[in-house]
Amino acid sequence: MEALKERIRREGRNLGNGILKVDSFLNHQVDPALMLAVGGALAARFGAMGINKVLTAEISGIAPALTTALALGVPVVYARKTRPVTMPRQVYRETAPSHTKGIDVELMVSPEFLGPQDKVLIIDDFLARGKTIDALVRLAQAAQAEIKGVGVVIEKAFEGGRLELAYLKVPVHSLAVIARMEDGEITFE
Amino acid sequence: MEALKERIRREGRNLGNGILKVDSFLNHQVDPALMLAVGGALAARFGAMGINKVLTAEISGIAPALTTALALGVPVVYARKTRPVTMPRQVYRETAPSHTKGIDVELMVSPEFLGPQDKVLIIDDFLARGKTIDALVRLAQAAQAEIKGVGVVIEKAFEGGRLELAYLKVPVHSLAVIARMEDGEITFE
Repeated sequence: MEALKERIRREGRNLGNGILKVDSFLNHQVDPALMLAVGGALAARFGAMGINKVLTAEISGIAPALTTALALGVPVVYARKTRPVTMPRQVYRETAPSHTKGIDVELMVSPEFLGPQDKVLIIDDFLARGKTIDALVRLAQAAQAEIKGVGVVIEKAFEGGRLELAYLKVPVHSLAVIARMEDGEITFE
Repeated sequence: MEALKERIRREGRNLGNGILKVDSFLNHQVDPALMLAVGGALAARFGAMGINKVLTAEISGIAPALTTALALGVPVVYARKTRPVTMPRQVYRETAPSHTKGIDVELMVSPEFLGPQDKVLIIDDFLARGKTIDALVRLAQAAQAEIKGVGVVIEKAFEGGRLELAYLKVPVHSLAVIARMEDGEITFE
């Protein structure tokens, strides 16, 4: 997706250790028009697969997942990291090690909103080592939902997440694939 | 906003102690089409005020704030509760007591994305006691931004948040105002 790559070239910053800062349009400040285009592009890729639910993780997955779900005309469920008082005691619960925080993050989904009837598209902002997406996969599997595909905004190919998800045998699509982040540079595939 | 009230009537659950569960379309599962309508309605209310930024708090504010910002054609900034590695050390930082969690929640915004040039519309999912919105107000004030208005999806009028925000002397607009939540009922104003 050229508009996204152009935005990464212009505003993305390589902070070292594989950390890409895109806080001006994706992770702190969000550009809604770009997110609408991102959602449209992801929906176009997965549109003909009978998807009836988008699944993502709070926090940064919410914006692209919402616009993808909007374009697909289906609801989006975001896995919660802390249990709100409105959530039942019995939930699907998986953990994912967080790259940037150095701790395990818990992800929870209520069985009220994910089940065997669901054909799920998993959406997230980043595909790095694939750990968060793998936790979303396990949540969907625990709910006996069918996983139809994985869509991400930015893939850091050098972190190997795509290989990590190969066992799923579903399409994994990224709108911008970064091959290398060396010497302060950001190099697309 | 009638479509929203209808949805609350149909799917909202009064869990007691003033807690309204709307997890099927706003707080865990999100209905993107409803959110688009919510954003359109909030943007219509505040459209002519020169707003150039929407400010919200993660997590549940993100969806309605994104669609409002989309309709206004401006960026949205969501205040973070934990500092990501991409955030500078020097940030605007305020705390808000959380009604449902019983603890103080920290909200942070980077000075990169909020400053004296900004005319801000604050958006959140709920107006209850007004504590989260008041923390967002203080963040905007710390950044010397001008606050033009406050828009929320659902107001629980019986918790007094509107009075709490009266000192701001800016329009506060809610799309659905709940007057009472007694005996398992949900009564609109």
